[in-house]
Amino acid sequence: MEKTLDYTSEPPRDRLQLIVRKDKPFNAEPHLPDLVEHPITPLNRFFCRNHGPLPLLDDNHTISIGGVGLATKVLYTVKQLKDMFHEKTIEMVMQGNRRDGLHKVKHTKGVIWGPGAIGNAVYSGCLLKDVLDHANVNFASEDITRLHLAFESVEECEEERCYGSSIPLTKALDEFGDVLLAYKMNGEPLTQDHGAPIRVVVPGIPSSLLPPVTVVMTTSNLTLVLAFKTEESNSYFQRKDYKILPGEVETEQEAADYWCKVPSIAEYNVQSYVCDPSDGLVDRSCRRIVARGYAVSGGGRGIQRVEVSGDDGKTWTVASFVHRPAKAPSSINVWGWCLWEAEVNVKRNTRIVSRALDSAGNIQQENPIWNFRGVMNNSWRTIDRERAEDANL
Amino acid sequence: MEKTLDYTSEPPRDRLQLIVRKDKPFNAEPHLPDLVEHPITPLNRFFCRNHGPLPLLDDNHTISIGGVGLATKVLYTVKQLKDMFHEKTIEMVMQGNRRDGLHKVKHTKGVIWGPGAIGNAVYSGCLLKDVLDHANVNFASEDITRLHLAFESVEECEEERCYGSSIPLTKALDEFGDVLLAYKMNGEPLTQDHGAPIRVVVPGIPSSLLPPVTVVMTTSNLTLVLAFKTEESNSYFQRKDYKILPGEVETEQEAADYWCKVPSIAEYNVQSYVCDPSDGLVDRSCRRIVARGYAVSGGGRGIQRVEVSGDDGKTWTVASFVHRPAKAPSSINVWGWCLWEAEVNVKRNTRIVSRALDSAGNIQQENPIWNFRGVMNNSWRTIDRERAEDANL
Repeated sequence: MEKTLDYTSEPPRDRLQLIVRKDKPFNAEPHLPDLVEHPITPLNRFFCRNHGPLPLLDDNHTISIGGVGLATKVLYTVKQLKDMFHEKTIEMVMQGNRRDGLHKVKHTKGVIWGPGAIGNAVYSGCLLKDVLDHANVNFASEDITRLHLAFESVEECEEERCYGSSIPLTKALDEFGDVLLAYKMNGEPLTQDHGAPIRVVVPGIPSSLLPPVTVVMTTSNLTLVLAFKTEESNSYFQRKDYKILPGEVETEQEAADYWCKVPSIAEYNVQSYVCDPSDGLVDRSCRRIVARGYAVSGGGRGIQRVEVSGDDGKTWTVASFVHRPAKAPSSINVWGWCLWEAEVNVKRNTRIVSRALDSAGNIQQENPIWNFRGVMNNSWRTIDRERAEDANL
Repeated sequence: MEKTLDYTSEPPRDRLQLIVRKDKPFNAEPHLPDLVEHPITPLNRFFCRNHGPLPLLDDNHTISIGGVGLATKVLYTVKQLKDMFHEKTIEMVMQGNRRDGLHKVKHTKGVIWGPGAIGNAVYSGCLLKDVLDHANVNFASEDITRLHLAFESVEECEEERCYGSSIPLTKALDEFGDVLLAYKMNGEPLTQDHGAPIRVVVPGIPSSLLPPVTVVMTTSNLTLVLAFKTEESNSYFQRKDYKILPGEVETEQEAADYWCKVPSIAEYNVQSYVCDPSDGLVDRSCRRIVARGYAVSGGGRGIQRVEVSGDDGKTWTVASFVHRPAKAPSSINVWGWCLWEAEVNVKRNTRIVSRALDSAGNIQQENPIWNFRGVMNNSWRTIDRERAEDANL
């Protein structure tokens, strides 16, 4: 039986800008050519990822920190966090992307996200590390590298009592990790659809671990709980959602044996996509076009090169970067995306594909490798099979 | 004209255990089935990577630290480093691997390393971070994320006055980065072939940036120079060696335009290899075999799964881990390799391949993508073309 959830406080939305994948909770992504028009994705074209209804909250809401290393809980209101800590600003990508490519191979479970479920924003807030330092957490004899920092929001969602997830504590404590308690997006206070009044943002790590909106939402006074634990969050999302199961696991029943054996995804993989032309091909006669798209990798790895092919991967052209994120050309702690363009020779109804190479030499794979949850698809872009002439997908 | 270098102090070597790729300087790698017999690679089966002759040195040799953030140079003898700092031990992989796979596609420049140029060792030494803290380096208003830590050894080598390279300073300062000034390997003092009396080891970063042996070698009193710089090391190795050039660059002349535009490799990519059977196929009639190999990724990313195919990639079997490195199943700051085995159905002269998936969801590519320097090849293993029946390589 589905839960009855109260959606009466949802914000107004510019639905013309978005393709709605699910209405309640609201999940939507922008049209592809719109996405690559802006180096910093405007809010009305930024994908929305929700697990439940959005309450209306203000700066009196409270964050609680507790667990291993703290005898009693430490509380901060959003107002205190804004007043007490230095404001840091970072450019970073969130994504929850491209399940559709695997769903075409075989049924997957979840919202069928396309390649538009990605956005590059400028977030401002306090460094979570500064807040943890101020809270005087004392790990004493604990092996920090084995601890996790779990997040819990108390709002209701479909799958669970509330949304929850965790990250390795070392990521939160990393001086260069840039994990924020963010209260601004693109220079403006967070909107209801993007986590108002405050949210955790973890650069370089898949957004489904920390979906854009619901982490900090609640109808109670307690907006967000942070706890130091000796194991990952127990939440449905951390334990049974963002995992790459082996290809032979095809049903919920088969998956049951694997959830505890397969680790949660730790970082994004290397990714790029041809967004313009949005179908990944031209269906009229023309010899040469300019293709456009995005590229990004995880864990702070920069993109060193994007190559584009107008003939389904037979020959490749090195793309030019139209936008490089803050920090590039440094190749570490890079959280934002690249936008690129390339002039390529094309044939009618033949796949136009891109492949990105990150600073660790990882490259996108040619063919999608299916998994039950349909996650972390970074194969070359697909096109509609019936429209393909030369293309193998 | 080649330099005349003095090779009279070379150590004795167990040449039966190694395939010698070049004699002077000594470059060699073990036989594949031997390699996967031991979770921790014994010294006589550990690949040797040298750029010049090996001098004989003792604990009176000195390390110098200088550059941005230090008004005067700070010196430590090896003996002081051993006495003054806490000894840390880590399990980690070094590799300089698999140029041969790209060289088969088209000529590459450099020693033609096979897939045995990899080893998993236990190193002990002091944390470079502790030494830098003790030296009282003060970066004041510098943006640390843009600084590099350059290494320089004063020994002679073929390509340059001395071996040099650099890493991002953030890696050296990372509390969980485990960069060591190591003086032990597998519990014993370093041997001459592996960096005696002390060497820099940087887990998760390609060893060609810091070849196993020559970094700390010198015939003078000054064994190793560390300098904080606003740009990467100027050395040949950092600037014109470990870079993935675009495929269209085929000559030294064409490469000249690219060296300053292409970043140095920042971390290893995801890697695995079928070592047993060593040819990657069976040439007699048998239905089912146990295949064995290694798997590792870079930047501290753990391996979450290895799959093996006995039919050239048509069907896959999940391998069992025979060895998992210290820190696994934690998926971050994992520096060691996995050894795996899998029972698979095989056909005569058909390629047996493996593909590894790391904690960031990166996976090995099917086909090698050639580059001029022949670096970072992580495609599925290749076999001799003339012996292949079903295989495409």
